[in-house]
Amino acid sequence: MDILKKNWYTESCDMWPGGTFSFEVKEILHQEKSPYQDIIVCDTTSFGRVLILDGIIQCTEKDEFSYQEMLSFLALCSHKNPEKVLIVGGGDGGVAREVSKHPKVKEIVQVEIDARVVEVSKKYLPYMSVGFNSEKLTLHIGDGFEFMKNHSNEFDVILTDSSDPVGPAVSLFQENYFALMKSALKPNGIVSSQAGTFWNDIDLVTNTLKYCRNQFPVGAYAYTSVPTYPSGLIGFVMGSLDPNVKFDSPQIRFTKEEERAMKLKYYNSDIHKAAFTLPTFLRNKLN
Amino acid sequence: MDILKKNWYTESCDMWPGGTFSFEVKEILHQEKSPYQDIIVCDTTSFGRVLILDGIIQCTEKDEFSYQEMLSFLALCSHKNPEKVLIVGGGDGGVAREVSKHPKVKEIVQVEIDARVVEVSKKYLPYMSVGFNSEKLTLHIGDGFEFMKNHSNEFDVILTDSSDPVGPAVSLFQENYFALMKSALKPNGIVSSQAGTFWNDIDLVTNTLKYCRNQFPVGAYAYTSVPTYPSGLIGFVMGSLDPNVKFDSPQIRFTKEEERAMKLKYYNSDIHKAAFTLPTFLRNKLN
Repeated sequence: MDILKKNWYTESCDMWPGGTFSFEVKEILHQEKSPYQDIIVCDTTSFGRVLILDGIIQCTEKDEFSYQEMLSFLALCSHKNPEKVLIVGGGDGGVAREVSKHPKVKEIVQVEIDARVVEVSKKYLPYMSVGFNSEKLTLHIGDGFEFMKNHSNEFDVILTDSSDPVGPAVSLFQENYFALMKSALKPNGIVSSQAGTFWNDIDLVTNTLKYCRNQFPVGAYAYTSVPTYPSGLIGFVMGSLDPNVKFDSPQIRFTKEEERAMKLKYYNSDIHKAAFTLPTFLRNKLN
Repeated sequence: MDILKKNWYTESCDMWPGGTFSFEVKEILHQEKSPYQDIIVCDTTSFGRVLILDGIIQCTEKDEFSYQEMLSFLALCSHKNPEKVLIVGGGDGGVAREVSKHPKVKEIVQVEIDARVVEVSKKYLPYMSVGFNSEKLTLHIGDGFEFMKNHSNEFDVILTDSSDPVGPAVSLFQENYFALMKSALKPNGIVSSQAGTFWNDIDLVTNTLKYCRNQFPVGAYAYTSVPTYPSGLIGFVMGSLDPNVKFDSPQIRFTKEEERAMKLKYYNSDIHKAAFTLPTFLRNKLN
């Protein structure tokens, strides 16, 4: 494993040239090449357990809750009654963990392409794979794209927890993916997709949002702070079939007691609105 | 310069162990040891010009506007009439550039300890040092701490644009610094200080805010996205002598035309409120 030098792992990618993040590794716990990707799990000195797919950090124990909670709750709380939810990707289980907390959610279907990510997470990342224990959840191993072709008018919310648009996940950032999700949604359904960061690739954000708005009457971009992602944040493109939805005004507001009961560490009803509030240069580009 | 290897510069610091950010250098433009610190200016492949003091990135051309605008305008717009402003530090000129844009500001006094940072910025970082050209500005080279001992009841807003609390800047994070700023303020005066990031050092944030609240009837923490700072963001501790101030409700709201006229790229009246909206774990710790 030549990318590990002197116990430091350096992440780099053509998507963000000229800058890299490195972290100190205590121990490599697992390493394999699955049919879909290289999988590494390691313990680090400062970020807890880290899951790396094809050389890119997917989540660290220190900050994963920000991504998982915000991908899930921004969408769920923008819907009046999110009873049935589809998760595409999310093989570590973190998004399932969050979605299953929501009091209105009755049924969760998850489609993950790589069974090995699920198994590795169950063994090494129990704080995320706990999501697979939910009685609300049915997990399918397969291609989310193909799955949706056979499921129309079925879901209230679709969450796409994908890797970045290099390699296999590239199809999840195209307009026909948004069209497919639209057909899989019930009336007034909502989608939220991992959609890159505006500092690194404003064109990716702009294009993904454009594809979404071509298919949905309302589209928006939100973001949250995740220090171990490139540029320290990650964004979501969200679309709603309800033309009257105001994404920055949650339909369901939680009390502090409810937040505590759900063990929410990042999401709250105030940060919901803040997540849609854009810096001027980005607002001028997207709106 | 042994820290430059193969044209990549790696920033690391005891304040954030176990993780480092590295960037590709095109050319080192300047390098010196001033009486106060090591100064480096370089051109990079992805972040434009970068100013490094004592091995720590102070600002990159790509994202400096976020820091400078938010340090300046969160405080200025929380005050009804910020006529006279003191800047402590800020030797690159970026904060002066922003403060001088504000229509209510009539007079700016800046105290920077290191004349060499000012000179280097004037030569290599003209997009920031343009701030020194403002007719509103008087620049003193000296110790801001000492300066304030001889100036009481004089300023409406004090902005502290310091390096991190290792070495010379450590005194700017102590309670007696907040007491000194309080004495230098006019009634209803406001302070804003660079105060670290909650992901890396929540105790630093907690303590700095505690010192502020011990001296000021109202204190708050805000933050903004700056990808080339550790964890991708930076925070500010703010205090007001006006017990009725609501930091998250700006006293002055700008129209889009005004934003454009002031060339604001990050700050707007909506993101003002969002900057004070904290993730649940941080809100529970600070409030």
